[in-house]
Amino acid sequence: MSSNQELQDAHRTRLIALCQEVLAGRKLILASNRGPVEYQLDEAGQIRSQRGGGGVVTALTPIGQHVKLTWIASAMGEGDRRVAQTAEGRRLRSPFPNQSFDIRFVVSPKDAYHKYYYVFSNPLLWFLQHYMWNCPHAPDVDQSTYDAWESGYVAVNRAFAEAILDEVRGDPLEPVVMLHDYHLYLAGGWVRGALPQAIIQHFTHIPWPAPGYWRLLPAFMREEIGRGLLASDVAGFQTWRDVHSFLHFCQTFLPEVEIDFGASTVRYCGHVTRVRAYPISVDAANLLRTMRSSRVQDYVAKLQPLRTEQAIVRVDRVEPSRNIVRGLKAYSLLLQRHPDLHRRVKFFAFLVPSRTRIREYQRYTDEIMRTIDLINERFGQGDWKPIIVFLENNYLQALAGMSFYDVLLVNPVIDGMSLVAKEGPVVNTRDGVLILSEAAGAHDQLSGGCLSVSPADIEGTEQALYQALTMPLEERKRRADLLRSVVEEEDITMWLYHQFSDLRPAP
Amino acid sequence: MSSNQELQDAHRTRLIALCQEVLAGRKLILASNRGPVEYQLDEAGQIRSQRGGGGVVTALTPIGQHVKLTWIASAMGEGDRRVAQTAEGRRLRSPFPNQSFDIRFVVSPKDAYHKYYYVFSNPLLWFLQHYMWNCPHAPDVDQSTYDAWESGYVAVNRAFAEAILDEVRGDPLEPVVMLHDYHLYLAGGWVRGALPQAIIQHFTHIPWPAPGYWRLLPAFMREEIGRGLLASDVAGFQTWRDVHSFLHFCQTFLPEVEIDFGASTVRYCGHVTRVRAYPISVDAANLLRTMRSSRVQDYVAKLQPLRTEQAIVRVDRVEPSRNIVRGLKAYSLLLQRHPDLHRRVKFFAFLVPSRTRIREYQRYTDEIMRTIDLINERFGQGDWKPIIVFLENNYLQALAGMSFYDVLLVNPVIDGMSLVAKEGPVVNTRDGVLILSEAAGAHDQLSGGCLSVSPADIEGTEQALYQALTMPLEERKRRADLLRSVVEEEDITMWLYHQFSDLRPAP
Repeated sequence: MSSNQELQDAHRTRLIALCQEVLAGRKLILASNRGPVEYQLDEAGQIRSQRGGGGVVTALTPIGQHVKLTWIASAMGEGDRRVAQTAEGRRLRSPFPNQSFDIRFVVSPKDAYHKYYYVFSNPLLWFLQHYMWNCPHAPDVDQSTYDAWESGYVAVNRAFAEAILDEVRGDPLEPVVMLHDYHLYLAGGWVRGALPQAIIQHFTHIPWPAPGYWRLLPAFMREEIGRGLLASDVAGFQTWRDVHSFLHFCQTFLPEVEIDFGASTVRYCGHVTRVRAYPISVDAANLLRTMRSSRVQDYVAKLQPLRTEQAIVRVDRVEPSRNIVRGLKAYSLLLQRHPDLHRRVKFFAFLVPSRTRIREYQRYTDEIMRTIDLINERFGQGDWKPIIVFLENNYLQALAGMSFYDVLLVNPVIDGMSLVAKEGPVVNTRDGVLILSEAAGAHDQLSGGCLSVSPADIEGTEQALYQALTMPLEERKRRADLLRSVVEEEDITMWLYHQFSDLRPAP
Repeated sequence: MSSNQELQDAHRTRLIALCQEVLAGRKLILASNRGPVEYQLDEAGQIRSQRGGGGVVTALTPIGQHVKLTWIASAMGEGDRRVAQTAEGRRLRSPFPNQSFDIRFVVSPKDAYHKYYYVFSNPLLWFLQHYMWNCPHAPDVDQSTYDAWESGYVAVNRAFAEAILDEVRGDPLEPVVMLHDYHLYLAGGWVRGALPQAIIQHFTHIPWPAPGYWRLLPAFMREEIGRGLLASDVAGFQTWRDVHSFLHFCQTFLPEVEIDFGASTVRYCGHVTRVRAYPISVDAANLLRTMRSSRVQDYVAKLQPLRTEQAIVRVDRVEPSRNIVRGLKAYSLLLQRHPDLHRRVKFFAFLVPSRTRIREYQRYTDEIMRTIDLINERFGQGDWKPIIVFLENNYLQALAGMSFYDVLLVNPVIDGMSLVAKEGPVVNTRDGVLILSEAAGAHDQLSGGCLSVSPADIEGTEQALYQALTMPLEERKRRADLLRSVVEEEDITMWLYHQFSDLRPAP
């Protein structure tokens, strides 16, 4: 663990030096829909702050430890709106000690925000980018979609651009602007229009599907999304698959661009955008510190007695793309085929409720719970319950669970990265085996150490579970060591390092 | 029309000369699951023959007019089996005057055929290649899928290969083998193994989706499909989109191959496969002859009185990928927005029942009929019924309907080609407007003349309908002329010509 800390320190030193070189007097602006702090009104009407949730915030917060920046985010709830309206210039200092940066809220009219977030970004873009539409039947792109685009998605993106421009007004040098994720495909266009010398980067955290699937969107929407991204100097994606898909998207839908597949660049209106892959990662040293905390160790103490001989663990948001039901079916098949495993193997499912107001997500939760009940009824005996489920948002408990897996099952239908596949090997203490879907972005880096499964393949997943549970200890160790070292070499600091590295001016 | 006939004659002359050059003493073997003749048992137990249905047979039958060939096909029903078992060498002469070739049936055990056709090819491959799976929930690839692959798909493909090898046993020269469609991805591998000098071509009639979507299949199945196709000298697809997808598929899943994206070739085990697009087409001159027949003219006479001022027409199999419901919704929106069109515009839907034993198709039929009833109830007045539907397999009646469209709506979610978009402009007599989905293969050739729509875009489709119905006559004529000439230049004979052309030995 000390070597890990040394590695991380070395990474950090490199990153800080690089940031100073790249910024060189430029202001750094970071923009994402969800910000690093959320303000909520409690029952007494008092405003309370808490750290923002979600992967984007977790990944980006460390930047503030290294460089000065302003973070621009949507005022999402009533608390954010209230705070933003009273703050001077809608700008405030983060109340958290490790967040040494300013936050500026973009306050959109509620109706516009609703259209932007709850109609256009989720579900339309989210479902599209995860191949999740049942295409013959949905979506119906109708007048309300057009309206959600124009007076929601376009309007809020424009408001982000205006907030960014307002932040840097009068600065001697144009800024470095980092835009994050599918909520903000368009903002870069207006920023580029006003600041031709700005350094703009956009990073897409979710998959970029094939052009054939993007045809579900009307042509003018696809084209504006493409042109918005091409206003960046660098368009970043999780994997080279996504990079290729984006280049192919440009080739298919933007006839006026010039694409160099070899160099992975797109020239549009005289401007060249580099298209790059930056697989997001975890903060390995910090994860290990958290693991040693008494709160996590209390959970370990609570969970340990529930273990039997071997533990299969999964940790997921309750999200249809995470493929939780097929994973359960594979486990059921395993128990059916191998009665000798009964009482010896237990499945721990740490599931985080998600988008609970959307019917599709409610139905998916019901289907999961029903499947678990059926399996527990069919195979349970006395005090042995084959599946233990925790349906709650409790990250520390899930980390505790990951510390003792023999098998970690991560089998999404498709996923930008699947960070849990990187967290697991870092925190696990048993040289457990990772079963990973080929359709997870993490598979590109981890395929040498994991057992690979095709996401729809219940038969193959059952075989992988059996192989993992019966794997000799030396092979487990060899694989686990490999996974750990890949994650530690390419940790979250290096994710940032590679991005800043590509923002350096050409020599 | 005479100029069309001259053009077609010229095409045919070129094709015949080319075939002689390419074949040069080699036998020509054509293989497709469905053959050019189907034998059925009538109620009295007598065997009756009829022409095989489906697009593949229609497209390939004309080859027999030009060159000698043997056509290998599955014995699909009891009649085929009976005939095959009594025929010497399972080979027989086509009973139809324009089919001057031998037919040889591959007779598979019923159980194997069921697994190959009804479990693996349809629905699994068909749904996959049309992006039609609701991925978070289906398909479940389980033991029955593995079994359908091994003892169905692999077994029948192997039987096709054996039949081909048997046909050419002892011949001095190795044959030219043309394999058709998604039922026969693997057969080429065994043929190549036995006949290294054979000229093998495979043509895929349906779309080739992105690698990301192919991940729904287990790795070993995807890889065998890829390697099967790479046994060909030429792998043909409908469009360059499909070609690109296939190259990307090879790059993603077959690490041992070398891909040249510029030359569109794949090298595997020392053998080079050229990957090419051959957009399938129609026999324009023959279509016009059919239109002049008394049977079609009788239908025209029957349908004409049902027309009002303007007619919107669609012709489709009842197939979820054809997007029939969204087309109806767009029409409903048109009537809602433009009361002045009531009584003046009528929608003719010629729908052919399809796969009526599959629940998904039954449900889709119900949804279509329910939607039509709702629209007719809502907007109908007295003797004006906004939608007339013909739910029957009656090609000549549909041709008659196409002769008088003002607007032809072809809006599939995705489709290999959409031949109806090529038939319409040839047989239409009113310079009608074609509204065509960007996701139809035909869009690549016809985009200059059609109005383009994104398939999920009901709002945009309504706008296109209105634009088409109100288009000035000169523009209609200009577009219709363009469409007609594109189809006549690249008719079915040229489709064959381009394929044979690429089979010529390298100079």
